[in-house]
Amino acid sequence: MLSLRNRTEEYLRTLQDRICAALEEIDGGARFREDAWERPGGGGGRTRVMQKGRVFEKGGVNFSAVHGELPERMRAAMHVEAGEFFAAGVSLVLHPGSPHVPTVHANYRYFETSTGDAWFGGGSDITPYVLYDDDIAHFHATLKRACDAHGREYFPAFKKECDEYFYVKHRGEARGCGGIFFDYRRGTPQELENFFALWKDCADAFLPSYLPIVERRRTIPFTDQQKRFQLLRRGRYVEFNLVYDRGTLFGLETGGRIESILMSLPLLARWEYDYTPEPGSDEARLIDVLRNPREWA
Amino acid sequence: MLSLRNRTEEYLRTLQDRICAALEEIDGGARFREDAWERPGGGGGRTRVMQKGRVFEKGGVNFSAVHGELPERMRAAMHVEAGEFFAAGVSLVLHPGSPHVPTVHANYRYFETSTGDAWFGGGSDITPYVLYDDDIAHFHATLKRACDAHGREYFPAFKKECDEYFYVKHRGEARGCGGIFFDYRRGTPQELENFFALWKDCADAFLPSYLPIVERRRTIPFTDQQKRFQLLRRGRYVEFNLVYDRGTLFGLETGGRIESILMSLPLLARWEYDYTPEPGSDEARLIDVLRNPREWA
Repeated sequence: MLSLRNRTEEYLRTLQDRICAALEEIDGGARFREDAWERPGGGGGRTRVMQKGRVFEKGGVNFSAVHGELPERMRAAMHVEAGEFFAAGVSLVLHPGSPHVPTVHANYRYFETSTGDAWFGGGSDITPYVLYDDDIAHFHATLKRACDAHGREYFPAFKKECDEYFYVKHRGEARGCGGIFFDYRRGTPQELENFFALWKDCADAFLPSYLPIVERRRTIPFTDQQKRFQLLRRGRYVEFNLVYDRGTLFGLETGGRIESILMSLPLLARWEYDYTPEPGSDEARLIDVLRNPREWA
Repeated sequence: MLSLRNRTEEYLRTLQDRICAALEEIDGGARFREDAWERPGGGGGRTRVMQKGRVFEKGGVNFSAVHGELPERMRAAMHVEAGEFFAAGVSLVLHPGSPHVPTVHANYRYFETSTGDAWFGGGSDITPYVLYDDDIAHFHATLKRACDAHGREYFPAFKKECDEYFYVKHRGEARGCGGIFFDYRRGTPQELENFFALWKDCADAFLPSYLPIVERRRTIPFTDQQKRFQLLRRGRYVEFNLVYDRGTLFGLETGGRIESILMSLPLLARWEYDYTPEPGSDEARLIDVLRNPREWA
């Protein structure tokens, strides 16, 4: 059997292709632009970005598989010994134009070192601007089914980690309505094999968790006020990504490919001083949910 | 004679009033909204924000004077002993609607502890979107005159500190076209008195350094492309403030008043994937200056 390294890389490369093809189809307008890049120390990636589509105002689906000598900075951050490393991942963020269609993020990654350390990380979370409970419940239920096939303990743990991670501390609110998140999933070779199967099922659940929501919300007309509120919430998305997101900060600090790292930022974001939604409005209801995360599945 | 603490607080309170009055007059449309706030541990402030003015799309001029027990987090950051502290400052950021009128930032602050430590900090810097060399030269020359009255060594040192501080490392470019910046200016009581005089002259130079630029650029028509480029550059402004700015990060971490801290963010910011200006364009010339800071005075 091929090594985990070979199989994860191959899986992720195909995952990017499948996701991009499905997104181009549902968008029906724009295509992904691809920028292939090489990492001086070894490996490289394919950054794919779509802008000004019919559905997606801006979105990116990135694949990378890099390897080489472990940089000192990475060793310190990851608490691993010196040696060679291999890291592969697919990372995506989609910002639709319509406030009825939520922003979504997913990231699935694998890491190993020549000294025998290896782990999986990943997750997916959803950020609505107009809150449709059904959509969020569908998103969570789809991810839950993928997890439950491998054990009932996974989803509740990953959902909790997601709520904890995607938290905008200075605002006292979640970035969005959560999903799943996990990192540093190590184990014996057999445990890693089992986790690889779970990890693939979670990643495969991305399209069925999200596309039906796009399909049923994409043509609903929206008001200027809904668009304004979407841009204000995207300001919070920017705040999370630039102040807290470990991957973003690590990339900026270690001189990763900036345009690939910051493709997660929306086309437009807005900051109004002390914006407060009308009590009892849809906006107020969304913010209440962000302050008090719910169980959706 | 009153203590430095009393005199700096009084000076800064009046500075805020003078600056707000002059900005309302030149805007000719919007007025500042004031939110007075109190700090649970002692002291408080007056946040003043203007939105959707004729000149200023968004701007804030904040005054604060806080005191109390030194929080542990502050002691570590500032390398000072336990005890009481007093801190007063005026901080302003103005984002005009027209890309012909630069964004400007200024901050003048004083800090002292009950254990006898005391220092001044401050500075002012300018961020143009359409580069008029005359405007930047006027801004720098006005600040230089204020510094030179106290010694020829100050301006070159403060200009250099400003270029070093307002640097967006991951982009390899300055946030704007610089100005002056200084911090932790300690000294004997006599040296502090002398520095207080310099500090006041720099702060007093804010209005004459900036208002003439507003006056001569405010009515120039602008194109959609100039507005788009302004919003892209405001994205970089957001990147600096959320990733690097010490005051912003310190405020977010220590639970300051979020809306006062983040009033520095623009009404709108834009991120396009891999945006590259036309070679030879005005945009390319501005970016070249941001990558290779100049001496303007």
